[in-house]
Amino acid sequence: MSTEPTPKRPRTNPTYELLYHPSIPGRGEFVRLAFEAASIPYNDVANNDKKGYSVVQAACSPKSTGDADGNPPAFAPPALRVPGAGKDGKTLLIYQTPNILMYLGPHLGLAPEDEAERLWVNQNMLTALDLNNEAHDTHHPVAVMQYYEDQKEEALKKAKDFRENRIPKYFSFFERVLKGNEESGQGKYLIGNKLTYADTTLWQVMDGLHFAFPKEIEARSKDYPLLFGTFYPNIKEEKHLKEYLASDRRLPYSMGIFRHYPELDRQ
Amino acid sequence: MSTEPTPKRPRTNPTYELLYHPSIPGRGEFVRLAFEAASIPYNDVANNDKKGYSVVQAACSPKSTGDADGNPPAFAPPALRVPGAGKDGKTLLIYQTPNILMYLGPHLGLAPEDEAERLWVNQNMLTALDLNNEAHDTHHPVAVMQYYEDQKEEALKKAKDFRENRIPKYFSFFERVLKGNEESGQGKYLIGNKLTYADTTLWQVMDGLHFAFPKEIEARSKDYPLLFGTFYPNIKEEKHLKEYLASDRRLPYSMGIFRHYPELDRQ
Repeated sequence: MSTEPTPKRPRTNPTYELLYHPSIPGRGEFVRLAFEAASIPYNDVANNDKKGYSVVQAACSPKSTGDADGNPPAFAPPALRVPGAGKDGKTLLIYQTPNILMYLGPHLGLAPEDEAERLWVNQNMLTALDLNNEAHDTHHPVAVMQYYEDQKEEALKKAKDFRENRIPKYFSFFERVLKGNEESGQGKYLIGNKLTYADTTLWQVMDGLHFAFPKEIEARSKDYPLLFGTFYPNIKEEKHLKEYLASDRRLPYSMGIFRHYPELDRQ
Repeated sequence: MSTEPTPKRPRTNPTYELLYHPSIPGRGEFVRLAFEAASIPYNDVANNDKKGYSVVQAACSPKSTGDADGNPPAFAPPALRVPGAGKDGKTLLIYQTPNILMYLGPHLGLAPEDEAERLWVNQNMLTALDLNNEAHDTHHPVAVMQYYEDQKEEALKKAKDFRENRIPKYFSFFERVLKGNEESGQGKYLIGNKLTYADTTLWQVMDGLHFAFPKEIEARSKDYPLLFGTFYPNIKEEKHLKEYLASDRRLPYSMGIFRHYPELDRQ
């Protein structure tokens, strides 16, 4: 008799394809972390294949009215392709980070069975992504397609408000979510007693904020003991995530959503 | 034998409670439109009862770690309470506009049966809400809690980029979604051949943009014939929505997400 543990999930998972920009973590990282946390294989198309980015660009083309599999157009990456999961067994194409995470959650074992808990996970993911978007806007408060240097004065004002008002508002909220779930989640999980895509999403935003605003985060972290003392370090130690974060699949922060401009950090 | 048509939905709908700020359409309007389009009763707590806003404030209190029904805290309105739909038959409380719409969609008959179509509806709702958020940020590019007058210079720059780059990017996208679905949706529906919460959500954003940027929308509308020639007027004529829009339940725009500052519009 084999002593091998039975695989937790069937081997019939489709080959998920993540369509995102190459070389940066960006919003694709929320999807990557879900796959990695679940240890489910995925093809990070633009990073794994030199010609991969053309697939991403075609899927999000500003001329597209849909693809050959009957999928409607995608506004922007990240998008997800799932062979066999579309209409009549065709390839499904979906986009929008919250939509992708909501879809993947149950497939990857990162969403609770209970419907109420599932909705709570989803709302916490959405709020973590709102914080992510506000972090992005600190360096691009005026125009996403213009250079930071051309909106630096506005960025200084926006970053000040973000640090002084928005960061404490969000951190206080997530500290209270952890507190309210402490009996079940022990400060390690936002909802229930197992890792969900709300946890991986919030963790990634916190990690990016450490990179972008190191002084601000250092100064604030003591005010949120569950969030910074238990939740953040614990997620890093989750078995598969620990391996991933040490691997070269984990892309470094650079000039994406999270950017370290010292002048935007606490002075 | 009665000639009465059988009711499309059972009479056992719970009394849905919408928790939102009183007197403004805001993000609550996306939820209101879903109920109204489906002709399902709901209690707009802060508008229907003088003491109602205290219920909203309690649900989103910055001190809360959860409520007596076991629901985790809510970050901000809108929130939705559904008696009987929570754990052990308690009251469910959820928040985040996209989460509420995703939950209500199937209950209100505003989401397709097909899983792929349901995901497409969801992603289009999310993109319409992104446009909504960008419209808000035109008058508050620096700090959400400061006065417009204190960020007017930045708002002029942000609004220019929004009008010249963001509006055409989003409108082109939704025009292409309608085009790709034209055989089934006839330009009237984004996905499939029936009204969904993606349609009501996009419609509300377009309507708000008409109020906030009348000159810009007037100038652009001819470039998107399905969107402005078919989709936008058709949704207004949907039976229940037409009644709602003529009723006093439809709150006027004022100083919420959509604001008409002539200096931010096309000059």
